[in-house]
Order: sequence, then C-alpha cells, then structure tokens
Amino acid sequence: MERVQALATRLRALEDKDAIRELIARYGPMADSGDASGVADLWSESGTYSVGGVAEAKGQAAIAMLIDGEMHQNLLAKGCAHLLGPVAIVLDGDAAIARGHSVVFCRDESGYRVWRVSANRWELIRTPDGWRVSRRVNAPLDGSGEARQLLGFGDRSDNGQTLKVESHEELNAPKSRATVSLRVDRHRL
Amino acid sequence: MERVQALATRLRALEDKDAIRELIARYGPMADSGDASGVADLWSESGTYSVGGVAEAKGQAAIAMLIDGEMHQNLLAKGCAHLLGPVAIVLDGDAAIARGHSVVFCRDESGYRVWRVSANRWELIRTPDGWRVSRRVNAPLDGSGEARQLLGFGDRSDNGQTLKVESHEELNAPKSRATVSLRVDRHRL
Amino acid sequence: MERVQALATRLRALEDKDAIRELIARYGPMADSGDASGVADLWSESGTYSVGGVAEAKGQAAIAMLIDGEMHQNLLAKGCAHLLGPVAIVLDGDAAIARGHSVVFCRDESGYRVWRVSANRWELIRTPDGWRVSRRVNAPLDGSGEARQLLGFGDRSDNGQTLKVESHEELNAPKSRATVSLRVDRHRL
Repeated sequence: MERVQALATRLRALEDKDAIRELIARYGPMADSGDASGVADLWSESGTYSVGGVAEAKGQAAIAMLIDGEMHQNLLAKGCAHLLGPVAIVLDGDAAIARGHSVVFCRDESGYRVWRVSANRWELIRTPDGWRVSRRVNAPLDGSGEARQLLGFGDRSDNGQTLKVESHEELNAPKSRATVSLRVDRHRL
Repeated sequence: MERVQALATRLRALEDKDAIRELIARYGPMADSGDASGVADLWSESGTYSVGGVAEAKGQAAIAMLIDGEMHQNLLAKGCAHLLGPVAIVLDGDAAIARGHSVVFCRDESGYRVWRVSANRWELIRTPDGWRVSRRVNAPLDGSGEARQLLGFGDRSDNGQTLKVESHEELNAPKSRATVSLRVDRHRL
Repeated sequence: MERVQALATRLRALEDKDAIRELIARYGPMADSGDASGVADLWSESGTYSVGGVAEAKGQAAIAMLIDGEMHQNLLAKGCAHLLGPVAIVLDGDAAIARGHSVVFCRDESGYRVWRVSANRWELIRTPDGWRVSRRVNAPLDGSGEARQLLGFGDRSDNGQTLKVESHEELNAPKSRATVSLRVDRHRL
C-alpha cells in the first residue's frame, strides 16, 4: 500500500504540472477569440496581471476589461496572435511559478509583424476549483533588467524551498474594488 | 484494487494528453523536413486538413500532397519554419479537441519574415494505432470571425460533455477518392 | 503487484518526458535572463552545443561562454527572446532525442524583428542528477539540407529501436579542455 501511495504522489505532481500547462495554454486562444470571461477565469478572484508598459489589472473584472478594452479589441479587429513559448514550472505543493516568453503578432496592410516580445512570470495557486493564476507579471524584453529578472531562476533550486510567491494578502480586496489602470502604450497600433 | 484502478484511470488521461501533445508537436518538424508520409500519418485515414485560403485536403494521400506540392516545396527551398504554440486540450474518452496558434516564418533575401499567423482547431480520435488527427481546421488570424471562432471554447465546460467532434461519416470515402483542392494563395511567395 | 509495477513503468515514462520538456523549456528563459551557469547546467559535463554558423561549444564551461560572450550579451542589451516551439520526443530508456524549432527575436530601433529561425536536434541522457542535454545541434532553416535533416525522424519508428545517439566517448575530454569556437555570424547585429 505504501508503494501505491508513492505512485499516487508522483502522479499528482504530473497532474499538477499538466493542469498548469493547460491553464497557461488557454490564455492565447482565449485572448485571441475575445473570450474576456474565459481569460478572467484563468486567474483567481483576487489575481493580478501586470502588463508592462500597458496596464495593471487587479481582480477578474479588471482582467476581463483588458480583453474587452479598446486596445485589445483593436488588435483583434486587425488580426493578432498571442503566442506563448513553453513554460518552465517550479512546483511547491499548492503553489507554483512558471516562466516563459510571449510574442504578440499583429496584422497590418503589409502582412504580419512582431508587435511585442515579452518575459512572463506566472504565479499560480491551487484553489478549490483547480489551479489558477494568482499573479502574472509581463514585461517587454527591451534590454532592461526588469524583464530579464522575470525569467531568472534565482538560485535555481528545484526542490521548491526557495520558491517565493508574493503574499496575496494585499490583493484580497472585495471584487468591487477590482481596478485596471491603462497606460498609453508606447507602440502605436 | 479499486485504488489501483483509480490510479490507472488518472494515468491514462495523462498518457492521452501526452500522446496528443506529441502528435501535434511532430507536425512542424515533419513539415519542415519535407516528410510527406510522416505528416500524413499524423492524420487518420479519412482525416481532413483545411488550410484557410490555401487548400482543402481529404485523406492521407491528399495531406501528403500538401507537403509534396509546389507551394510547400517552394517554402522549404527558401527556408521556412512551421512553429506551433502550446495547445489547450479538451479530452473526452476516445475523442479530443486541441486549440492553438501556428506561425509560418519564411526566409527571403532580407532575412526571415512572418508569413502566416493562424488559429488551429485540431479534432483527434483514438485509433487502434494510437491518437490521430481526424480534422484540422486552420485559418489566418486576419480579424475575421472564422479564425477567432476556431480558438473559442464555447461554454468552456471542462468535463467533455459539450465536446462536439463533427461526424466523420461523410469523410469515410474510399482512399482513392482522397482529394486536395489548392487555391491561389493570397500571400506571394 | 504486477499491476502496480506496470503502472510504475508507465508513470516513469511520463515523468521522463515531463523532465525532458522541462529541461528544454528552461533554455530560453535562462538564456534571456543571462544565466550562464544555469544554461550550462542543462547540459551534461561533456555535453556539446553546435550553433550552426555561429559556434561549436564543448563542455559546460564552453556553453556558459556562449551566454557570457559578446554576441549574446549584445543581444541581451538590445532585448531578445529565444522562443522555442514544442518538442517531439523519442524516448529510449536512459537516452532520448527531441526535435523542434527555435526562433530568436531581436529588438532594434524600429521594433522587434525575427533574427534567426532554426531547427534543433537535442540528444539527452539520464544522469545521476536527472536528464541532461548531451548534444544539441542547431542550424538555421535557410533551405539547406542540414537543417531539414535535424528535424527528420528517419524511419519514424516510435519504439526506440532506431534511436541513434552519437557516441559521447570522444567528448569525454577533461573539463579543462572545454572549448568554444566562435564564427563570424552571417547576420549583422
């Protein structure tokens, strides 16, 4: 029975990684189909999404507004793709961190061009409804240290002991306080 | 014994997702190495591949012709890459749907450029030989509703009850009827 | 007990594939965060990395030098992303081969552009510390046969019997002999 228990533990770790990969794999297709509530549901209720140079969204309603907002709708109307790279996942019980690239392609009169290339750090938590994003930080890879740090593994410990997920206490605002602040984007659409 | 059975069921679900990811991950490398029969074997015998604005292929022979055809051979000679993004998979017993992006890069005298950016809906079935693609629909993300719908999750039910794989009855034509219709592509090579 | 053993064997195969995907998924984030020792540790001690048209690195020290070297640091300062596609993995006990694309995006005054699009063949081995890359061969997809062959599956046997991992005997040079030879790159930075 001990042996079966050991198998169950190993299986659960694989299931967790699969669920996290699946969650993140849904972001691009949902964003590019304009599915605002689908995207918002990838996050926990008080989850945050920091889009470097573009917006800071706090809570599911604010995250949905990023998809329903003018900038994203403008991209959708032109034709766009939010392509993600594979994510490297560090799992630590009910929390996890995933790191990877995202690239936004945008269509204009001359064809497709590379509009934005970013680093992403995803912080994830296990909720009663499954894994959800508690915090995503995105920053354009423009030579600055910020984006590079998002992709860094610190001391690269795999055993999770160094996994630091920022406290979410300050995010536990009531849903009605969900806010999104949009900045003028430096890239012209 | 019940517990072992439960583990076996969970393990099989992970194996199915792994096999589907692997199947789809082979498409790009096989296409870009010019392996027509390898690409065709990713599909079921009566499988279809709709390449939006380019071609409609029905059956493995027709799918192989897409790789051996002039357009793809032209791309290969210039240097091209069919890069896929991660796929989001909804599994339902012996059927599955996967959604994700594909990007074709093409080399010209000035370097590489983004030639095509598409949405993909993959319908898959379990066959005696393992998972195969029964239907792939690809459409360029050009702002039209068609491509966006391919990436949409409908009501986003995860439990598979809403999974709709189109009937393949009409595709069960004899192999000799495999057809491919090539359209003039709107992008110049 | 036999049944539990069979589950354990299947589980281990999935764990191996997960570990290999994870290892390869770390390359891009580590490279773009400038983590030279992290990148080097993805390889075995005597591992090699052939960057077609750019460099031949042999041993972890040489691979670290690719990241610390002028070309890569130049890319990092401008802003770059080493985006990988999904890998198709053929597993054979303690060895494996993975095939997939990589794309390097680079930022210049006009935005991001596609700098390099390559084929990759990763040879991996199980070591006491887990899976490591024993050999990576990268070649730009420029229409040449070399890059296309890297993505090819030979006879596409899945059962591993045709898996050929090149002998690493000749690579077992002492670490002090780690060498890297840099070639002038044909693309201007």
